[in-house]
Amino acid sequence: MNRILVDPEELQGADRVVLRDARAEHIRRVLHGVVGQTVKVGVLDGPRGTAVIERIDGDDVALRLALEDVPPPLPRVDLLLALPRPKVLGRLWAQLAALGVGNIVVTNANKVERNYFDTHWLRPEVYRPLLVEGLQQAGDTRVPRVTVARAFRPLVEDRIGALCPTGMKLVADPTGLMRLATVEVPATTRVLLAVGPEGGWTPFELALLARAGFTTVSLGARTLRTDTACVALLAVLQERMA
Amino acid sequence: MNRILVDPEELQGADRVVLRDARAEHIRRVLHGVVGQTVKVGVLDGPRGTAVIERIDGDDVALRLALEDVPPPLPRVDLLLALPRPKVLGRLWAQLAALGVGNIVVTNANKVERNYFDTHWLRPEVYRPLLVEGLQQAGDTRVPRVTVARAFRPLVEDRIGALCPTGMKLVADPTGLMRLATVEVPATTRVLLAVGPEGGWTPFELALLARAGFTTVSLGARTLRTDTACVALLAVLQERMA
Repeated sequence: MNRILVDPEELQGADRVVLRDARAEHIRRVLHGVVGQTVKVGVLDGPRGTAVIERIDGDDVALRLALEDVPPPLPRVDLLLALPRPKVLGRLWAQLAALGVGNIVVTNANKVERNYFDTHWLRPEVYRPLLVEGLQQAGDTRVPRVTVARAFRPLVEDRIGALCPTGMKLVADPTGLMRLATVEVPATTRVLLAVGPEGGWTPFELALLARAGFTTVSLGARTLRTDTACVALLAVLQERMA
Repeated sequence: MNRILVDPEELQGADRVVLRDARAEHIRRVLHGVVGQTVKVGVLDGPRGTAVIERIDGDDVALRLALEDVPPPLPRVDLLLALPRPKVLGRLWAQLAALGVGNIVVTNANKVERNYFDTHWLRPEVYRPLLVEGLQQAGDTRVPRVTVARAFRPLVEDRIGALCPTGMKLVADPTGLMRLATVEVPATTRVLLAVGPEGGWTPFELALLARAGFTTVSLGARTLRTDTACVALLAVLQERMA
């Protein structure tokens, strides 16, 4: 927890909050917080800043916040993700938030097993705390906006532009002749990156994506598990955009 | 399992092997293997190739291998890793092997908790199957060579050169002024990348590494969990070396 994040609804007035959960415990036990000490904070989807510990009282830790004027910029990458195995999805949420993704759109694909969509990892009450955990790790406040749009074809043909207003669309696939690391991303351009299922996109899906303006890019010859691939692709892409 | 890997000791003669474990089941159930069908194979630390299914008999799958003349090249990246939390280490093994790492040297650091070294994830009989799983995913045969060298200072001052003969040494730390993505790696040069513990390297450790020839590089402002950081750093570095 490199930055303590609070929900806007937790604020009392403009600048006060009382914590009494894992965040309070983190301040007491890990940061060895004492009254008067300053800690790094942020408001979810709002600004970052610092907070002074005003009071520590049993389980309660009371903070007074001094926030920056504007929130950090929205991450410039969006992710279109064919639903991976539940266990892999579970591992991904915090990592995606930590790496910084604006929108995450989860969809179906030919090689996604049907019962994957029953997973509890797709429930907001399950994944939201993991997203916040990733943000607290990375020090960001911007919660990725998650949409589950199961029907792949209408998503790609009609809905994706509204969900992810974007200047550049890439799809990761071993057939891509262009290496991701050589893609030129103009400054301020948003990028939508599509990552396929464990068994890969089908030629039909790749053709559909190509017709919708996606360029196929690869990350070399090694086939990676979805979670490794997502982290690797996002890291390389973000370095291209830094 | 994108490539079935066999141990040299499993070979019967030069080119035959009988499988009856998860690999046999993968051939039968996932690849729907029939006699005469060809599958992708490799010999651990040896060459890749193909194999023809000669016989399927109960749990047994008998293969005849046709191997390439030379093994795939050794990955050009080595990793010096301050021991992460056991759970994180457990998640890393397969991913490191999949990404491709020549040597993995696990060491201590000031912010590594002492009891982490008791973890079963450091036992060869536990991590080796995970390394092989990562190789089968990525299609490589080169098993990363793992060394646990707990004493950090003698390792960095004396032993590291022999463990990882290398042309370039990098240490990942947020204080690095150079972005990893801008590092110029000459062709054929090996790179040793040092990744710190969850709480980061201490100034003393960074100074010791600097004296041993390590250049500090960063991956931007976001602080990542060790497993995410390792995957992100290796992916960006390998794209620089592609």
